[in-house]
Amino acid sequence: MIRFESDYTEGAHPRILQRLLETNEEQTPGYGLDQHCEAARNYIKKACQAMDAEVHFLVGGTQTNATIIASILRSYQGAVTAESGHIAVHETGAIEAAGHKVLTLPSRDGKIRAEQVKELYRAHWADASHEHMVQPGMVYISHPTENGTTYRKDELEALSAVCRECGLPLMLDGARLGYGLTAPDNDLSLTDIARLCDVFYIGGTKVGALMGEAVVITQEALRRDFRYMIKQHGGMLAKGRLLGIQFETLFEDGLYFEIAGHAVAMAMRIREAFTAQGFSFRYASTTNQQFPILPDEVLKKLGETYAYSFWEKAGATHSVVRFCTSWATKKEHVDRLVKDIQAL
Amino acid sequence: MIRFESDYTEGAHPRILQRLLETNEEQTPGYGLDQHCEAARNYIKKACQAMDAEVHFLVGGTQTNATIIASILRSYQGAVTAESGHIAVHETGAIEAAGHKVLTLPSRDGKIRAEQVKELYRAHWADASHEHMVQPGMVYISHPTENGTTYRKDELEALSAVCRECGLPLMLDGARLGYGLTAPDNDLSLTDIARLCDVFYIGGTKVGALMGEAVVITQEALRRDFRYMIKQHGGMLAKGRLLGIQFETLFEDGLYFEIAGHAVAMAMRIREAFTAQGFSFRYASTTNQQFPILPDEVLKKLGETYAYSFWEKAGATHSVVRFCTSWATKKEHVDRLVKDIQAL
Amino acid sequence: MIRFESDYTEGAHPRILQRLLETNEEQTPGYGLDQHCEAARNYIKKACQAMDAEVHFLVGGTQTNATIIASILRSYQGAVTAESGHIAVHETGAIEAAGHKVLTLPSRDGKIRAEQVKELYRAHWADASHEHMVQPGMVYISHPTENGTTYRKDELEALSAVCRECGLPLMLDGARLGYGLTAPDNDLSLTDIARLCDVFYIGGTKVGALMGEAVVITQEALRRDFRYMIKQHGGMLAKGRLLGIQFETLFEDGLYFEIAGHAVAMAMRIREAFTAQGFSFRYASTTNQQFPILPDEVLKKLGETYAYSFWEKAGATHSVVRFCTSWATKKEHVDRLVKDIQAL
Amino acid sequence: MIRFESDYTEGAHPRILQRLLETNEEQTPGYGLDQHCEAARNYIKKACQAMDAEVHFLVGGTQTNATIIASILRSYQGAVTAESGHIAVHETGAIEAAGHKVLTLPSRDGKIRAEQVKELYRAHWADASHEHMVQPGMVYISHPTENGTTYRKDELEALSAVCRECGLPLMLDGARLGYGLTAPDNDLSLTDIARLCDVFYIGGTKVGALMGEAVVITQEALRRDFRYMIKQHGGMLAKGRLLGIQFETLFEDGLYFEIAGHAVAMAMRIREAFTAQGFSFRYASTTNQQFPILPDEVLKKLGETYAYSFWEKAGATHSVVRFCTSWATKKEHVDRLVKDIQAL
Repeated sequence: MIRFESDYTEGAHPRILQRLLETNEEQTPGYGLDQHCEAARNYIKKACQAMDAEVHFLVGGTQTNATIIASILRSYQGAVTAESGHIAVHETGAIEAAGHKVLTLPSRDGKIRAEQVKELYRAHWADASHEHMVQPGMVYISHPTENGTTYRKDELEALSAVCRECGLPLMLDGARLGYGLTAPDNDLSLTDIARLCDVFYIGGTKVGALMGEAVVITQEALRRDFRYMIKQHGGMLAKGRLLGIQFETLFEDGLYFEIAGHAVAMAMRIREAFTAQGFSFRYASTTNQQFPILPDEVLKKLGETYAYSFWEKAGATHSVVRFCTSWATKKEHVDRLVKDIQAL
Repeated sequence: MIRFESDYTEGAHPRILQRLLETNEEQTPGYGLDQHCEAARNYIKKACQAMDAEVHFLVGGTQTNATIIASILRSYQGAVTAESGHIAVHETGAIEAAGHKVLTLPSRDGKIRAEQVKELYRAHWADASHEHMVQPGMVYISHPTENGTTYRKDELEALSAVCRECGLPLMLDGARLGYGLTAPDNDLSLTDIARLCDVFYIGGTKVGALMGEAVVITQEALRRDFRYMIKQHGGMLAKGRLLGIQFETLFEDGLYFEIAGHAVAMAMRIREAFTAQGFSFRYASTTNQQFPILPDEVLKKLGETYAYSFWEKAGATHSVVRFCTSWATKKEHVDRLVKDIQAL
Repeated sequence: MIRFESDYTEGAHPRILQRLLETNEEQTPGYGLDQHCEAARNYIKKACQAMDAEVHFLVGGTQTNATIIASILRSYQGAVTAESGHIAVHETGAIEAAGHKVLTLPSRDGKIRAEQVKELYRAHWADASHEHMVQPGMVYISHPTENGTTYRKDELEALSAVCRECGLPLMLDGARLGYGLTAPDNDLSLTDIARLCDVFYIGGTKVGALMGEAVVITQEALRRDFRYMIKQHGGMLAKGRLLGIQFETLFEDGLYFEIAGHAVAMAMRIREAFTAQGFSFRYASTTNQQFPILPDEVLKKLGETYAYSFWEKAGATHSVVRFCTSWATKKEHVDRLVKDIQAL
Repeated sequence: MIRFESDYTEGAHPRILQRLLETNEEQTPGYGLDQHCEAARNYIKKACQAMDAEVHFLVGGTQTNATIIASILRSYQGAVTAESGHIAVHETGAIEAAGHKVLTLPSRDGKIRAEQVKELYRAHWADASHEHMVQPGMVYISHPTENGTTYRKDELEALSAVCRECGLPLMLDGARLGYGLTAPDNDLSLTDIARLCDVFYIGGTKVGALMGEAVVITQEALRRDFRYMIKQHGGMLAKGRLLGIQFETLFEDGLYFEIAGHAVAMAMRIREAFTAQGFSFRYASTTNQQFPILPDEVLKKLGETYAYSFWEKAGATHSVVRFCTSWATKKEHVDRLVKDIQAL
């Protein structure tokens, strides 16, 4: 079985493992206060051109989202997101467990628009009963989204402007950030994101690391006591160096973008193969997740060799499925899949 | 600088890194549903002689404590522990963040006694205002404790009996469990612990792993939907296999106990060296943490070569400090320290 | 200004005030343990034909909803409700503050159907990622709903059957219960509700009392330690007798239904008056809240004499508004309003 | 049975009931936005000489404490209080349910000292592991305390100065404030309290009202969105006027202090009677709660006629008990008790 079901089916990029081996006997202080974390922080700040930002390393995505959101909101405030947002659907209520409602906006592609945020904000404050309703307290987006779609620079600029106008911190979930920034039609840079968002994170778990997410806090007001929040949310790894070493490796010479670019190129080949056969897609994704709409008998056949994940039914005879590539995807596996698609 | 300040200053046992390398390209399902996790679960159940227990892997100690406790208690219940318990002092309010009070009992050595639990339980229910007070809902102990002390089998049996009598689930935090079970005066086995506790965990982070804690739930009522709790608390690692591979390595042939025993032997040599010089100790620890009471000028001198951690002042001229060994402690470092102690 | 804007614009029914005066100097124990609360509990159990139910008195609706829901759900579970449910919209996140997601179902009239619940339940457990999503843990309905609509007996029986099949406790918010049970087309009795729901409450605040909600817990499993929950949620009134005295007065001889019936009769007259003039309604309400769709110029005119509340726009020139009656509504005020409607 | 067991055994002061009767048919907006609340707010601000303070009305003490504390603290912060503080002992974990640890200081009389707060603050920040511990975020005191003791003006000034130096908001729980401000040795005024505290409340429930606590927020930073907090915590009474009418009555012409003074005078007579008989007291209370240490046979005898509450054992043959007076205490009951004490 060749697995295209998710982007976390393998271990870590070999250079990361190599580095873990080399540093294994070093003795370092715990909890992210070691020199590897420090070096990684600097590489990331440089990559963002945000030398006065604060960088923290956490272990996983749900934890990172819950920690950031809880650090921003007052208890009667909620996080605004697309109805398909990860925090709205796939975190077993981690945001609510920290006391906050997730306020959802309709979205067909996983993205939300500046005007939607503005209207929700306006409607809240215009309502005579606004004190009886959860107050919008921040905006959460992901790039790429759960649907593999990405924000254009002008879209992010518009969102950022509305958020600043309304006093709503803008957070970007970058669990798959590398795959967004290396998409063929991407016009955003890390620097843009650091400039337009108040806090965001650079995902390691799905882009080459064993695990780990690097949180970048650009807005000064959001930095206060963030390490307390990490500790309380169970995200302060005793051997914090493990995260430092991994992000050091990923960011010291651009490995992060190199391996993300590989994944995207592989995904584009799969996309083109399906397209060439006349199949259409559920979302206009240019990143590492592709969502073709396929006849169930085709799926059955492909399923004999390839693992993919089921997304949703599309009428009686077709389904939407997800094919994921990653930094670890082998070219020969994609060659084979493309050939099998061509043979359909 | 030779570091004895904590038991998480290095990476992982070399066999663990070796195994991560060997398995790196394997493609597995995520979230702990892979074959390595399954194998590790079986090794652990066998070691506990508890084949119908449930075993789950989480990332760190604070997270594990918060997840287990939140899964047991109703919202008006609290966890009973020693006033020095990790959950009472060093988790930045993670238990309270999940809505629960920590109910503390006085303790000079980090342990609590069966009679203390019984009396607290009796006093709660005898109080006419008991509905106005947090109800004791479970008991949390650690073995070894924060002070390096351990429970004898008869003590744990008595605690367990009282807990069952009172309907209070008994949880054992085993972040350093290996170091307790290999202490020279230890008379407890994993099997005893599985029999006497309702839930406990076997610490990996401090005993040879990069990170990871293996939760063993023996009481059936506590198993329900535990994976939802893990996910909500941010402990469900996407690449769950990393935890499975590590515990597989530690438990397939007894490596866990072997490396823990090494650490304890090293600690005993340090203890003996201090004792021989006439120094006394704050706690009667037979495990990997030693707490000598030393004159401040001695500490200054030792501090030139060795990192230890400050514990508390002991009068005007002395301090209690902590020297930790671990699976990674080098014999030659201990030789040198012992020699330096003898030269004092 | 004659106020039809809500059903809590006056104080309390005169007989309640009279009773408060008569009992004012009695000395009683606090926290609901007095003889008036005991008497009121008995009257209510009799009215429900549920002598082994447990009855508790709380102060207000948001508090009561939050307390009941928190007492039922485990932390990873959510409460299923209509998207317009009070807990989903108008409680400033009180349910989320207790850690729980509100899982909403689409609804045009404020009611949810048995099949919707069954489908949501089925879909949750059929999803391979169900552990990553909030688990449905109970069902919350209100009768009448926020829209003034009511459940028919067969609808409630179907809902109750599905809930029991799925193991989901069914809770009924009866903040306006009197107005539902005295609706002209109502075929439900208190006894039916006690039989079909696991927990519900009888609203006092909006039906004749100064304040107060009487919670009836019929399912044994939900009774455990409920007073701890009330105290923790700030609902345990020191002078609990105030609630006991009010419900005693309302239930000793049917006053509750008598005054609720009056309100409904008044509302029906208003409804008929609008209908006769050719106006239509947003919801098919047969209870004390009426939602006519009116031209904005008509509203302006009526607004000179009558207070109503704005509900939503209905196109460019019309609005939906709410006219509420209550136990306190004066017949002469309704006469006047009806006349003014007829004159439109 | 004549009840001295608590200060909430009767209804409300007759003038309050009278006012409720007179205003019963008035139609007002809900949720505290009516003219009675407005008038009451103004009376209170005048009494505090704090015209730019914000005044809110809540229903009960536990709710008020939980709401204020949750509005002040960030999630990793705790409230500092005496170990006997109401929030530490008698609120069924309401503070923890909102996510916050209660940080206790030792106290023999229910009061805490400025130096204790300073030392706790200093020790927290001096600890290298401070990020692993709950951060002190505010200070909670009560006046009078649970033990009937009161703060002198110089003590409160010292506490206030330390709190401001450390950036810790100072909150005063005044559930029995009237009884403290009319104590014979009291040198504090409402104005002093408004000047020295950042937020406090004036208790109605125990001082003449049916129920109700008036929160006065003097510090501007703490006022933000407080009504959202009230609503979320279930404290926003639909018929908010009930609270407004009561505080209007209590504060329009000094009734609050008049009836509190009566209660204190009655308590002093009881104190003197016990003293004259050679009995001593557990606490040096000059307020409405008295804690004599009495032989158990004396208690048995008094218990035939008088209800008091048990406090704690004092050796094998004696107990500490509590006798409470209130605004409702009848002079003839105290005459009789004093006579019975004299006859012991």
